[in-house]
Amino acid sequence: MTDETPKPRILTGSLDPKYPSLSSDYVNILEKHFVIVYRKDFEKDPSKFQDIAAILWRFGPKIDEELLNKLPNLKLVATVSVGYDHINTALIRNRGIKLSHTPNVMNDAIAELGLTLMIVAARHVVRFIEEYKNGAYPKMTPAYDVTPQFSGSTLGIIGMGRIGYTLATRAKAFRVNILYHNRTRRSAADEKAIGATYFRNLNEMLPHCDFVMVLVNLTPETTHIMGAEQFKLMKKSAILANCSRGQVVDQEALVRALKVGEIGGAALDVTTPEPLPNNHELFKMSNVILTPHISSQTRETRNAQMQLAVDNILAALDGRELPSEIPH
Amino acid sequence: MTDETPKPRILTGSLDPKYPSLSSDYVNILEKHFVIVYRKDFEKDPSKFQDIAAILWRFGPKIDEELLNKLPNLKLVATVSVGYDHINTALIRNRGIKLSHTPNVMNDAIAELGLTLMIVAARHVVRFIEEYKNGAYPKMTPAYDVTPQFSGSTLGIIGMGRIGYTLATRAKAFRVNILYHNRTRRSAADEKAIGATYFRNLNEMLPHCDFVMVLVNLTPETTHIMGAEQFKLMKKSAILANCSRGQVVDQEALVRALKVGEIGGAALDVTTPEPLPNNHELFKMSNVILTPHISSQTRETRNAQMQLAVDNILAALDGRELPSEIPH
Repeated sequence: MTDETPKPRILTGSLDPKYPSLSSDYVNILEKHFVIVYRKDFEKDPSKFQDIAAILWRFGPKIDEELLNKLPNLKLVATVSVGYDHINTALIRNRGIKLSHTPNVMNDAIAELGLTLMIVAARHVVRFIEEYKNGAYPKMTPAYDVTPQFSGSTLGIIGMGRIGYTLATRAKAFRVNILYHNRTRRSAADEKAIGATYFRNLNEMLPHCDFVMVLVNLTPETTHIMGAEQFKLMKKSAILANCSRGQVVDQEALVRALKVGEIGGAALDVTTPEPLPNNHELFKMSNVILTPHISSQTRETRNAQMQLAVDNILAALDGRELPSEIPH
Repeated sequence: MTDETPKPRILTGSLDPKYPSLSSDYVNILEKHFVIVYRKDFEKDPSKFQDIAAILWRFGPKIDEELLNKLPNLKLVATVSVGYDHINTALIRNRGIKLSHTPNVMNDAIAELGLTLMIVAARHVVRFIEEYKNGAYPKMTPAYDVTPQFSGSTLGIIGMGRIGYTLATRAKAFRVNILYHNRTRRSAADEKAIGATYFRNLNEMLPHCDFVMVLVNLTPETTHIMGAEQFKLMKKSAILANCSRGQVVDQEALVRALKVGEIGGAALDVTTPEPLPNNHELFKMSNVILTPHISSQTRETRNAQMQLAVDNILAALDGRELPSEIPH
């Protein structure tokens, strides 16, 4: 592309002022190829932006019929995320518009945070940090000697997709016994590489686990995949971790299970809703750690995601196959 | 041993009331073989305990000439720790008394906590947890997008003994590039198994590292092995972690390096002194996390340590070779 050729324009951004604009890293990646049009500017006179062929979704824009009607030349919606439950894929596809997401590039960041949160929860790291800062020396308390260890434990992974498998390869290095439940069973070679045992029936896996990590996509089938029945089957000492979507866990049932001591603790990067209201009782439980959906927020991963979104947009503009189309 | 045979007596415990007595787990392990004599009871009339042949060190007792003079039949000092800088080994050996410690069994617990603390520091996990709890939703801040990632980074390990090597095998599963500095170079096979690069000269290694982890024994040679000169050589974004002994880091130089931004942050499980005074400026730095020397405090590890100490005492009483004698 020479300086003569105008760069194609892409639409992004939310009308809700609480959502952030793009970081300077992102702007740099995008402006190599495109002119960025923010939703708030677009709405002033959509007729001036009829040429827009792609939407880049990053905390917005909300994509509904009204918006799509204003974009007659739209070819692609590129979401900068691996999950796409925030997008009405049927509505968009019915208009012949393609959809891309950013899988794989997030595996490392999510797997490393997921593993970290399990160890932080098991070993009471946050409590130790807070108590120490507040003047106590918790080493002198009986609890000092009795926190669970991740190394050598049994981890049940629910959802053995790319992220689940990446987590399993990390956990294997800690001599962890890996169990998994997934819609489809992994190949024998995949299982052997991580020493994993498949459970078609989730409820049969749960009693064995010291840690349970949920890493499924949110679908009608996975909504509340962890509920009251499941918590009753877990060890009283077990820790539930969730780095996927809040709604895969029945949160009310989780709160009850934690209160009555059916499980030992929880490490949640996602909740229902997000953000979780500040007065929510999960914030008050000493055996729960809550992070604000940060599992993929590393610079390396965010930039790789944005580059993959750019590659998808460029492919769509050229009529080439998309590097990472959302599966039908 | 039948019920007829009286169990041998072992001495343990501190005269300082702030130090904890043994946990019930420990007592159970010890009382299978021994009668436990606490220091405070011993001191009431040492002449009644002339038969004591072993000291079990766990937060005490302080072992000086005065105590040794009261124990004419002492054969072994068994410390429930891997480090033994708290023990005057020369004083004890000169009397023909053996020394044992508890190496290896702590590798997993220390390596998993060390790795966790590096990721927690890099990804600002504690800050995110605190801000979220306090009502903020940090996802909406620019910092959300820019924390460093552990996976794929370069880690420099200072001290490639058993614990360092265990940490390296864990880190390798995160596709981490492993550099190390050690008094002696590891075998080619050891290096290949973890893809590690040896640096005889510590200062040549430091500029390459995103993370630096200190895991050396405390000796005159390793005291302040990380000092002002070393911090200047590190990347401004790099994180220093220490899970060995506080004195291997020049703490005043570290504080200065953090203040002027010579390095990016620190994760310290050990400090000088311990506990660190509550008003210490390290507690006030947002890029520092401090844990109260908890790297080996899992139930599995503590019990394995105590069992190893028991095995050493039994061997010493029988005149057999010690399973884990402190090296000369």
